[in-house]
Amino acid sequence: MSLSNISIDGKRLLADLYRLRAFGTYKTGVHRPTYSKVDMESRHWLAERMRDAGLTAEIDGIGNVIGRGEGDGPRVLLGSHTETQPHAGWLDGALGVMYGLEVARAVGRGVDVVSWADEEGHYSSFPGSRSYIGAFSEADIDAGQNRYDGTTMRDALAVADLAGRPRIRHEPGRYRGYLEAHIEQGDTLESTGEKIGIVTSIVGIWACRVTIQGVQNHAGTTRMAIRKDAGLAAVKLIAAIDALFPTICAPRTVWTVGRISLDPGAGSIIPGAAEFVFQFRDADPDMLLKLQAALESLVAEADTGPCRVQLHNVSRSTPSLMDPGFQDALERAAIRHAPGLHQRMPSGAGHDAQWLARVMPSAMLFIPSIGGISHHWSENTEDEDIVLGCQVMASAVAELLAATA
Amino acid sequence: MSLSNISIDGKRLLADLYRLRAFGTYKTGVHRPTYSKVDMESRHWLAERMRDAGLTAEIDGIGNVIGRGEGDGPRVLLGSHTETQPHAGWLDGALGVMYGLEVARAVGRGVDVVSWADEEGHYSSFPGSRSYIGAFSEADIDAGQNRYDGTTMRDALAVADLAGRPRIRHEPGRYRGYLEAHIEQGDTLESTGEKIGIVTSIVGIWACRVTIQGVQNHAGTTRMAIRKDAGLAAVKLIAAIDALFPTICAPRTVWTVGRISLDPGAGSIIPGAAEFVFQFRDADPDMLLKLQAALESLVAEADTGPCRVQLHNVSRSTPSLMDPGFQDALERAAIRHAPGLHQRMPSGAGHDAQWLARVMPSAMLFIPSIGGISHHWSENTEDEDIVLGCQVMASAVAELLAATA
Repeated sequence: MSLSNISIDGKRLLADLYRLRAFGTYKTGVHRPTYSKVDMESRHWLAERMRDAGLTAEIDGIGNVIGRGEGDGPRVLLGSHTETQPHAGWLDGALGVMYGLEVARAVGRGVDVVSWADEEGHYSSFPGSRSYIGAFSEADIDAGQNRYDGTTMRDALAVADLAGRPRIRHEPGRYRGYLEAHIEQGDTLESTGEKIGIVTSIVGIWACRVTIQGVQNHAGTTRMAIRKDAGLAAVKLIAAIDALFPTICAPRTVWTVGRISLDPGAGSIIPGAAEFVFQFRDADPDMLLKLQAALESLVAEADTGPCRVQLHNVSRSTPSLMDPGFQDALERAAIRHAPGLHQRMPSGAGHDAQWLARVMPSAMLFIPSIGGISHHWSENTEDEDIVLGCQVMASAVAELLAATA
Repeated sequence: MSLSNISIDGKRLLADLYRLRAFGTYKTGVHRPTYSKVDMESRHWLAERMRDAGLTAEIDGIGNVIGRGEGDGPRVLLGSHTETQPHAGWLDGALGVMYGLEVARAVGRGVDVVSWADEEGHYSSFPGSRSYIGAFSEADIDAGQNRYDGTTMRDALAVADLAGRPRIRHEPGRYRGYLEAHIEQGDTLESTGEKIGIVTSIVGIWACRVTIQGVQNHAGTTRMAIRKDAGLAAVKLIAAIDALFPTICAPRTVWTVGRISLDPGAGSIIPGAAEFVFQFRDADPDMLLKLQAALESLVAEADTGPCRVQLHNVSRSTPSLMDPGFQDALERAAIRHAPGLHQRMPSGAGHDAQWLARVMPSAMLFIPSIGGISHHWSENTEDEDIVLGCQVMASAVAELLAATA
């Protein structure tokens, strides 16, 4: 097959995306939590669409929907996820799955399609893709629990009629690699007017909790000089982090305090204890180490003050490099279909591709997010950008399949 | 009567304080919330002790316990409050009420005693003393609600068998003035080794809420440069207040952020909204105005940043000056019984005396708090300091009663 012959059907792609949005429509977005009734209906619908495309479709024991083709020859795996965050956007991961389906139809052979279960983490952390690569045990399922209502993952799988089904595992050698499309979720492409992001790496996310122990006391009778105000210590430390990190960081480094709590949290009481969660992300492992060292030194400095300040590391994910050859293939396709409107960029969010990259060459393609909005029902992308992204993906896949093994 | 003849009975005073602690003992402290069963039992016990001291005792329609003597002649009112904060100290206001009772017994005549209801604000703000001076309406009772369990003040009064009772009002001309003893609740006396604090004024408390509106977004995909992080704006503003206030404030000014909340409060989400409560206290009205102006200018400056920052004033109490003649009488008594171990000082906490000061000369006497601890079950004062404080109060009262009207 020749690259010039591959043409996707944009209307068909959009029609499928619109149909998928109807499962759990919320305003202009979607509410489709993992293993909910509407999520399972959408998975069965997706399996039917895979069958229509000539694939053998299965929903496995973790909820992954996988459509696989018959025959020998070079083969790639395309996909993303179809469940959503609560009251979130209609595209997000659904885009990547529908791209997979459309590319499978357009290219005709060699394309398997997947929707990984629960990328959005309603029950656990990437259970679908981790199950596929053998990094999600039965004990992990036992530990899974809905973060909003506490339902166990086991109960949810049983209600979804998935209990007891086999879990599909990666077959080494089956694929040349994995490709995942996604909305950017930021405003980088929009701000430059570009249409295609070729992901260089998925950032590592390092998260910690900082706890501060002071002395609770009366906010009127306790002189400033003798206070051990845990809340104020937290505020000063966060301000110090925010002053220091810009002097160290790379252009795309991000850091966030998403939660602060003061104890007891009353207006007339000096907080005796405080806690905040802090996370930072970068694509460079050395930068993550450098930021961690800076954080540790600020915490140690804060600990010499009136309160006891402690750092508790919660999680550290390793940055995941996307395959250079696949990036080149995506770039060649972008030059062909969106000349001058593409750039290489890291992904600030985690994606299933970071797990797939452990077992095969993997790559990601981003399309613009209007206003950079993500995980909100108002998330959107222009129809023509959606179609263009799929065309670029299809061309790149065709080239990868055509290449001499 | 002569000053040298007045001698209190320290053992009797301590015995009464120990007995009062038995109503709601919690560890070495007390849990005696306003209008609770144990609080009402303690009020009836107190009324009996007043009767034993020759006073006519009543519990009125707001829960004030007032013991009044018969006959003409000069007269003062002594008291404080007997309910406690949750799981709090055994002295606090109980000390001032028991001082009143002991001074009434020691001085023999001219001393009325009172326990004001709910100084600790379980249901409202100083309902007992405000009721007495005519500044607490029936509508205020209707609006009263338990801050911990939501019970209405009306229901609580009915359960306490106080509904329908008349509320005792101040009789202009009855008293030369009001005196209230209290533990210091801070560490000023302890840190200097002094035993008696003569209160110059009760601070004004100005409280506000600061609300910050940013834009909620993904903590991984949103570049630092375009963030509108409401939590970070809150942190920077609090740090700026804490940097500026020490350059303006008086030696005893205090300021506190007791509560911060970030919305939605998740580690991977940039806070779209934030709120904190801020209060500051000083005895000088001009200083309060100066601090308010500084706060407003910092808020206005913060509002020019990426987020919208707004100041909402919640409450402002006026500093309350204690009567200079009464202060002098307390000082003379302190020179007599605790020479060189007394100082004049403001009260950083609010007290019923700030309301009584609106209708008659009022004064307060502080004794040391061990470790400056207050509103905690471990609150305590040395027995000899308790006895000494009562002796100073008795001498001052005797002098005030003996003075030519």
